Amino acid sequence: MNASDKLLKKIIEKGNPVCVGFDPQIEYFPKFLKEEFKEKYGETKRGVAEMIFEFNKRIIDAVFDLVPCVKPNIAFYEKYGSEGVRAFEETVKYAKSKELLVVEDAKRNDIGNTAAAYAEGHLGEVEIFNKKEKGFDVDWLVVNLYLGFDSIEPFLKTCQKFGKGIFMLVKTSNPSASQVQNLKVGKKLLYEKIGFLAKKWGIGLLGKMGYSSVGMVVGATYPEEAKILRKMNKKAIFLVPGYGAQGGRPDDLKYYFNKDGLGAIVNSSRKITYAYKFGEKKFKEQEFDIAAREEVKRMIKEIKNSF
Amino acid sequence: MNASDKLLKKIIEKGNPVCVGFDPQIEYFPKFLKEEFKEKYGETKRGVAEMIFEFNKRIIDAVFDLVPCVKPNIAFYEKYGSEGVRAFEETVKYAKSKELLVVEDAKRNDIGNTAAAYAEGHLGEVEIFNKKEKGFDVDWLVVNLYLGFDSIEPFLKTCQKFGKGIFMLVKTSNPSASQVQNLKVGKKLLYEKIGFLAKKWGIGLLGKMGYSSVGMVVGATYPEEAKILRKMNKKAIFLVPGYGAQGGRPDDLKYYFNKDGLGAIVNSSRKITYAYKFGEKKFKEQEFDIAAREEVKRMIKEIKNSF
Repeated sequence: MNASDKLLKKIIEKGNPVCVGFDPQIEYFPKFLKEEFKEKYGETKRGVAEMIFEFNKRIIDAVFDLVPCVKPNIAFYEKYGSEGVRAFEETVKYAKSKELLVVEDAKRNDIGNTAAAYAEGHLGEVEIFNKKEKGFDVDWLVVNLYLGFDSIEPFLKTCQKFGKGIFMLVKTSNPSASQVQNLKVGKKLLYEKIGFLAKKWGIGLLGKMGYSSVGMVVGATYPEEAKILRKMNKKAIFLVPGYGAQGGRPDDLKYYFNKDGLGAIVNSSRKITYAYKFGEKKFKEQEFDIAAREEVKRMIKEIKNSF
Repeated sequence: MNASDKLLKKIIEKGNPVCVGFDPQIEYFPKFLKEEFKEKYGETKRGVAEMIFEFNKRIIDAVFDLVPCVKPNIAFYEKYGSEGVRAFEETVKYAKSKELLVVEDAKRNDIGNTAAAYAEGHLGEVEIFNKKEKGFDVDWLVVNLYLGFDSIEPFLKTCQKFGKGIFMLVKTSNPSASQVQNLKVGKKLLYEKIGFLAKKWGIGLLGKMGYSSVGMVVGATYPEEAKILRKMNKKAIFLVPGYGAQGGRPDDLKYYFNKDGLGAIVNSSRKITYAYKFGEKKFKEQEFDIAAREEVKRMIKEIKNSF
C-alpha cells in the first residue's frame, strides 16, 4: 500500500494527527533510570543505549493506543555510535510491533549512488552477500534536497517499490530557517521553489486517498509560509515540527491542514517525552510515562479545539 | 592545534593533496573476500560489516604512507545498521592509528540542539552518565547549511574546542547539482551566497597558516564555480569530490588551489578502492590493495603534472 494511504488511514483510525518525537537527551532522563543503568552496565555507551531503549519502550507502551505515529531523530542515537544506532533499531522495531508508523528524522542526502545507499538502508533492502535483507525499515524518512533531482530519484524509486514515503525539508522550524530558505529567487522565495520541486516529484507517488508519499517539512513556527505552501500543494502531507516547546501555536495549525481536516502530522518531542519535567502538570519522575500520556491527551484536545 | 593547520601540515609532509574515499559497495568487492566472510559469519549484516572493515584495513595498509587523509562516506556503513556503523568506527580508528586525518562525509545537519548532538557525536564528546567520552572523533565533518546559522553554530563551537573542522556543502559534484545550487538569488547564484556564509562563519576559526577550519565542498566537475569561489575566499580549504570516476579533469584542478599550491584536497573513491576492477592497469582480485596503491601513485603524479 502507498505510504500516504497508510498514514492517512492510521490518522483516521486514531482520530488525531499527533506524532510523538523520540529525541533522547539523557540530561532530561529520570535520575532513578540513570542510576539503574549506570549500576548495571557501568559508565559506557552500551549502558546509555540500553537506557535509551528502556525509556522509549515505556513511553511507547504509554501512548501507542493514542497516536498514529512516532518520529525518532537519529542524531540523538548515532551520537552514541554503533551502540546508539542499535537503540534506534530497537526503538523502531518496538514502535512497529505496536502498529505505530515510524517517521525517521534524519535529514539525509547525497549524490546519486550514495543517496541510493541511504534509500536502501533506511527504507528498502540491502545486499547481504547473495541475499537481501531489510534496512532500518522505517515508514517515512526526512530528506534534504540541496543536491537536486539525482539525489532524490533513488528515494522515489525505493518509496514506489516498498510503499514508503519521504518528507522533504522545505521550511524548517528553527529561528535562522529564513536565512537561506527565504532568499529571494526571482519572484519567489527559495523555500517556495523547493516546495514546487517536492510537488512535482511527488506526482508519481499519489495514493488512493489523493495524497502523495512525497511530503514536506513545514515548521509550526512559520504559519505564513504554511499558508503559501498549502495553497500551492494540497496533495502533500506536511510534517509539522516545532509545535509546543519551540513556540508553534495551536491557533495557527489550521493553515497546515486541508479542508478535509487531513494533510498534516504535528510533532512534539521534549514536551511529551519529558512531560514529567516540562509539562503543565507536575509528576514524580517514576511517573514519566504517565506524564507523557497525559501530555499527549492534552495536546490531542488542544489541536481538536483549534479547528 | 587548529584543524586547518593540522591538515596543511599533513599535506606538506606527504607532498600531495590526495584523499582516498572509502565508500564500501560490496558488489565491487573481490569474490574471494566475499566467500571468506560468508563462510565465517553466514549471510548476516555482521558478516558484511566485518568484511568491509577487513577490506578497508588492507587498503589503508597499502596507501597510508602516501596520502594525507581518507574520506569514508557514512551512508555506505549505516546502510548496514548498527553493525555497519561499528565497521565505520573501526575504520576511523584504524586510519587514525596510521596517522591519517579522517574527513567524514555525512552531509549532516539539523536545528540547534539537534545539530549539537551531531557535532558532539561526530567531532566532540558525548555525555555518558557522569563522564564524557569521545564520539566518532573524526577530524573533519561534511555539513549542510540549508537550515541557517543556528544549525552551524554548534559545529563551530565544537571545532573551536576540539581542534576540528567542517566542510560546508557549497557546490556538489553530481549532474543535477545546479538545479538548486545555481538558482539566481538577486545578482548572485545560490551557491555563491552559501559560499559567502561559509566564508563569514569561518573567520573565527583561522589557523596560523592562514586557512580556516571551515572549508567548502566544491565538486571537481564544476571548474567555473571553483574559479568564482576561490576568488571569493582564499582562506577556505576546498574538499574536491568527483575527480576521476565522476569526470573531474586534472587540467581544471588549478582553479581549486591557491597560488601557494595549497588550499584543496582532491578525493577519489571508487577508482582507488576498486582499482583492480576500474583502474588503468589490470590486477588479480587478490591484489586489490596493490592495485589501490598503484592508482594512488598514478593520481599523485597526474595532479603534480597538472600544475
